[in-house]
Amino acid sequence: MMKLYYATGTCALASHIALEEAGAEYSTVRINFATHEQGSPEYLAINPKGRVPSLVTDRGILTETPAMLAFIAQSFPKAKLAPIDDPFAFAEVQAFNSYLCSTVHTNHAHRPRATRWADDPAAIEAMKKKVPETMTASFELIETKMMKGPWVMGDTYTVCDPYLFTIAGWLAGDSVDIARFPKVKAHRDRMAERPKVQKVLAAEKA
Amino acid sequence: MMKLYYATGTCALASHIALEEAGAEYSTVRINFATHEQGSPEYLAINPKGRVPSLVTDRGILTETPAMLAFIAQSFPKAKLAPIDDPFAFAEVQAFNSYLCSTVHTNHAHRPRATRWADDPAAIEAMKKKVPETMTASFELIETKMMKGPWVMGDTYTVCDPYLFTIAGWLAGDSVDIARFPKVKAHRDRMAERPKVQKVLAAEKA
Repeated sequence: MMKLYYATGTCALASHIALEEAGAEYSTVRINFATHEQGSPEYLAINPKGRVPSLVTDRGILTETPAMLAFIAQSFPKAKLAPIDDPFAFAEVQAFNSYLCSTVHTNHAHRPRATRWADDPAAIEAMKKKVPETMTASFELIETKMMKGPWVMGDTYTVCDPYLFTIAGWLAGDSVDIARFPKVKAHRDRMAERPKVQKVLAAEKA
Repeated sequence: MMKLYYATGTCALASHIALEEAGAEYSTVRINFATHEQGSPEYLAINPKGRVPSLVTDRGILTETPAMLAFIAQSFPKAKLAPIDDPFAFAEVQAFNSYLCSTVHTNHAHRPRATRWADDPAAIEAMKKKVPETMTASFELIETKMMKGPWVMGDTYTVCDPYLFTIAGWLAGDSVDIARFPKVKAHRDRMAERPKVQKVLAAEKA
């Protein structure tokens, strides 16, 4: 049985939803960011990066959301969470997830985690100030160029969908109105109707 | 035949090496960052993100290095550039590449591309100043916790190797001495001995 380490409000939500939708048997462990539990020796033994998510499997521990999402899709092929038998279509899924991970998540992180990239308090404020602009630019690209709709990859639901749902959920906190992006907004509403998404959200809130 | 859009000194080098080592038939197009060709209407029609690399295939255009590396490995299975039949081992490859893409490349980018994340000149200087520290921290983690050696995944060469080679090549410019990381340094030397790596480096310099 797999074990997911997550923290509330983080990108771990994407893998949590994917595990649920895959029909995986899994347990969860919540890491408390408020007490900086991710930096504890116990957690660093699991994930030396001191970040979430981490997925403990019978083969070893995996990290990094795009890698975990592809692993979940490949490990539970009956759930059809990615076009795993078509390298090009699979690469399209991976390219979308990589953009979320490396560009969009990073843009967002300059608000809550700006101290990663500068020490000067004025610089940190300058970074926070630009986050609405960078997140808007990223979501305009997603809305107009990347998302096929109604799901990210078109008519078929994939692991891109819980990942987009997760990161779109940060827009309000980043002072960006999701209503500017009608396809992303409709996607978010459609995701919120899925019983397994509701189950995971309730579990993370409990 | 595939076509790779690249620019010199960028992460596109990883995919360029992977294509060469896969035995792929491909052509290349060099994008000139000095004249901001990546922002031209012609290039934005290929990749609306205005970044490199982009890979034109007979099915469509792919972007994002981790996705392209996995695609190349899956498309040329005889080259054995990734454990494509083992979802866990494949996920380990992907996790490493995702870390390079989302954390290490991003750390580096705060030197040449700091204007992405703040407008204030003092903030940009503050970001540049911290790059040696963040790159050192990332490479300490790679050296001590992530790289199995002699190749990234151990005895078997994978698409992680050209990607690490590419990003380790940025350390000197980031004022970090690669000699601090003996495994990474030995890896870089071993990569530089490969004839196909030499061929690609010569092609990008020509």
